[in-house]
Order: sequence, then structure tokens, then C-alpha cells
Amino acid sequence: MKENSKISSAVIKRMPRYRRYLKDLRKKGVDKISSGEFSSLIGYTASQIRQDFNNFGGFGQQGYGYNVTALYNEINSILGLDKEYKMVIVGAGNLGQAIANYTHYYKSGFVVTGIFEINPRLIGIKINDIEVLDYEYLSEYVREQKTDIGIICTTMDNAQEVSDRLSEAGVKGIWNFAPIDLQAPEEVAMENVHLSDSLHSLAYHINKRKNQEQPFPTE
Amino acid sequence: MKENSKISSAVIKRMPRYRRYLKDLRKKGVDKISSGEFSSLIGYTASQIRQDFNNFGGFGQQGYGYNVTALYNEINSILGLDKEYKMVIVGAGNLGQAIANYTHYYKSGFVVTGIFEINPRLIGIKINDIEVLDYEYLSEYVREQKTDIGIICTTMDNAQEVSDRLSEAGVKGIWNFAPIDLQAPEEVAMENVHLSDSLHSLAYHINKRKNQEQPFPTE
Repeated sequence: MKENSKISSAVIKRMPRYRRYLKDLRKKGVDKISSGEFSSLIGYTASQIRQDFNNFGGFGQQGYGYNVTALYNEINSILGLDKEYKMVIVGAGNLGQAIANYTHYYKSGFVVTGIFEINPRLIGIKINDIEVLDYEYLSEYVREQKTDIGIICTTMDNAQEVSDRLSEAGVKGIWNFAPIDLQAPEEVAMENVHLSDSLHSLAYHINKRKNQEQPFPTE
Repeated sequence: MKENSKISSAVIKRMPRYRRYLKDLRKKGVDKISSGEFSSLIGYTASQIRQDFNNFGGFGQQGYGYNVTALYNEINSILGLDKEYKMVIVGAGNLGQAIANYTHYYKSGFVVTGIFEINPRLIGIKINDIEVLDYEYLSEYVREQKTDIGIICTTMDNAQEVSDRLSEAGVKGIWNFAPIDLQAPEEVAMENVHLSDSLHSLAYHINKRKNQEQPFPTE
């Protein structure tokens, strides 16, 4: 892989989206696509698309466009989706259970092998045949199993402690669902899903639209 | 509210995050904060912070800083969080159930009043005392209840149809969890939570870090 090491995080953010569209095109039997066609589909400009792919050495041929399958495979490789990741979930409440099911049914390559909890009422239940274990054993488990990713589905108050424990035990990445920004060592990748931020953005956009409907504001 | 109508979406994206930090400061009893102190907390530059707040008319006083509670209340008002939103969930599988519980326990101001499903095995079950209804009645319900937000927790294949139906019935916003970008009329706000994109970004960052550990790449 001829990868430019200074790829901006904006480009990286677009990669999974490119992948989704390519997967869909593949499913529909489309063999090749020009940057122009891709542009009208995904909504980025054609020049943006060409520039993004050039970051990784480019995959297109002048006058031919992009080979959908080759591009899809290459993006998979760039994203590291040609490997398997062992994951643990910390927090077996509703969200933890939903994430366990989500990965179980939809995410090949990302395998939840352990689920941990402090609430004694949840320890011992089974989620997709995985027994929920006592949080006390988390560090030992992650070390022994060489877990790649820790998924934090706890409350905000416990999240930093869980993150510290996961990092110390050697995970390479943390997928955080707690509504708080966590600290982690440089070598641990952190990805946040802040549901409440997303809902609040939606509220803003709803209100903005409502305000535009009224030429004379009432307040 | 002296609101500049040309606020960039980047600023809007930061607002919920500002709000989270202010909420936490309030909880800790902090009355005021300078843009410099806020900067070291949240990680944006002080000038960025001042600029962001100036978009909304600014709330700070030279030499004093920002009043935490006033700023928190103002951001709530900007985001429209001083109102209540009626929501329906479409799709009562694991994710739909998790979102129902999430809003029920943590999100004041956002109230799920109805949950809809096509799977007959799920129709009739109760989630937080809300009976899951047949998808057939969605349009009628949304019209009668004047539902503000539709939450899509269906599969990718059904999501666009659900989005169309919600829009036609008059929702003002859609919170989409299906792994697909949906079309909606201009007047309907759309907010996506693409879990798989987030997980794929995490995989990329894990692999990037791993590659940096090897001074001589093996491939």
C-alpha cells in the first residue's frame, strides 16, 4: 500500500462512506464508475473524490474511471477491514446489549468475545451465548485474550476508569458510547459515538427550519 | 436571540459539546470561566471559542470571562433544548429498544410516545410501558400526535421507505440509525448516526498506529 502518511482526518472520515457506496454498487452489479458518476451519487465533488483517492496512491485510470471491486477491496485494506478484531463490551445494560447484537448480526470482522458488568443482577446473563462476566476480571481477560477493542457502554461517571483499565490491559482502540470525552494514551485509538450531541444537533436544525418559516419572529 | 443566520455547520457541531462541558462545570459549582480556561478543557483554541460564541451575539465580558450558567442556558435555547420533542421509533429490534431506553432514562425533553414495527413477533410487546404498534398505523399516528422526530432503527433496505412515510406524515426531523444516507425533503432535518462508519474509522486508526510501530514495513 503506497500510503501517504499525512492523510488528513477529514479524508479518513470520508473513507467508510466511500466504502458503503462501493459495497452497494457491487451488490447492484456495477463494475466501474467515473469520479463524476460517483460525485452525483455521494455528493462530494468529482475533484474531491479524485484528490481523496490520490492520497492512497489513486486507483483510477484516465478515461475508464474506477473499478468498483478493486476500489472496494483497496479501501477495505486501507481501513484494516481485511483483519479480524477481538472486542469486549463493558456495560451490559440496554446499550451494551444493543451493541453486542449489532456486532453479532451485522459486523463481520469485529467479534465480541467478552462482556463485563459491575451490576450483580446482570453478571451471569447470556447475550448471544456470551456470559456476562464480573468487571473485576476485565484486565486479566483483555491481557490473556489479546483483545483489540474495548467498547464502553457504561455511565459517564465510570467511563474514564474503564478507559484507563482497558488501556493498561493493552487494547489498541476504544469505542466510547459514554457521553464524555475520555483521555487515553497516545497509542490507543479513541472513537466516540456521542448520541446526545447528535440528537441536540437535530433539535437545532429543526428549530432553525421552524424559525425560517416565520418572516416576523414572535420572540 | 441575536442569531447570525449564516452559522456554519462546523460551529453547530461544536455547540452540543460546549453544552456538555458547561453542564459538567455547573455540576462542579464553577460560576465563570475564561476562554483560555475553557480552551485547555475542551481542546479548541481560545480564539476559536470566542469566535464561535460571537456567532450567536457573544456572551462574555472582557476581563471577566463567561458566566457558566448564562452560557449554558443560552446554548440550550440556541439548540432548542428549552422545548419538548415528541418522537416515534420505527423498528423495535435491539437497536430500537436500546434507543427507547436511552431516551426514557437519560434524555429529558425528548419523549418517545410511539414505537412501530412490521415484525408480528414484536408488535404488541411493551418497552417502558409503550406498546409496540403495527407499522401500518405510523402515518395516522404521526399526523394525529403531531410527532416532531422520527427515529429510524430499521434495516438498510426499509429505511428510505420509512423516511418517506415519516416526512409525508409531517415530522420535522429524522434521526437515522440505518447504515444508509437517506433522502428527505428540504424542510425535514436529517441527522445520521452511522455506527459502522465509526467502527471502521476506529479500525483505520488502530492499524495506522500499528504500522507506525514498525520502522521497516513488512508489506
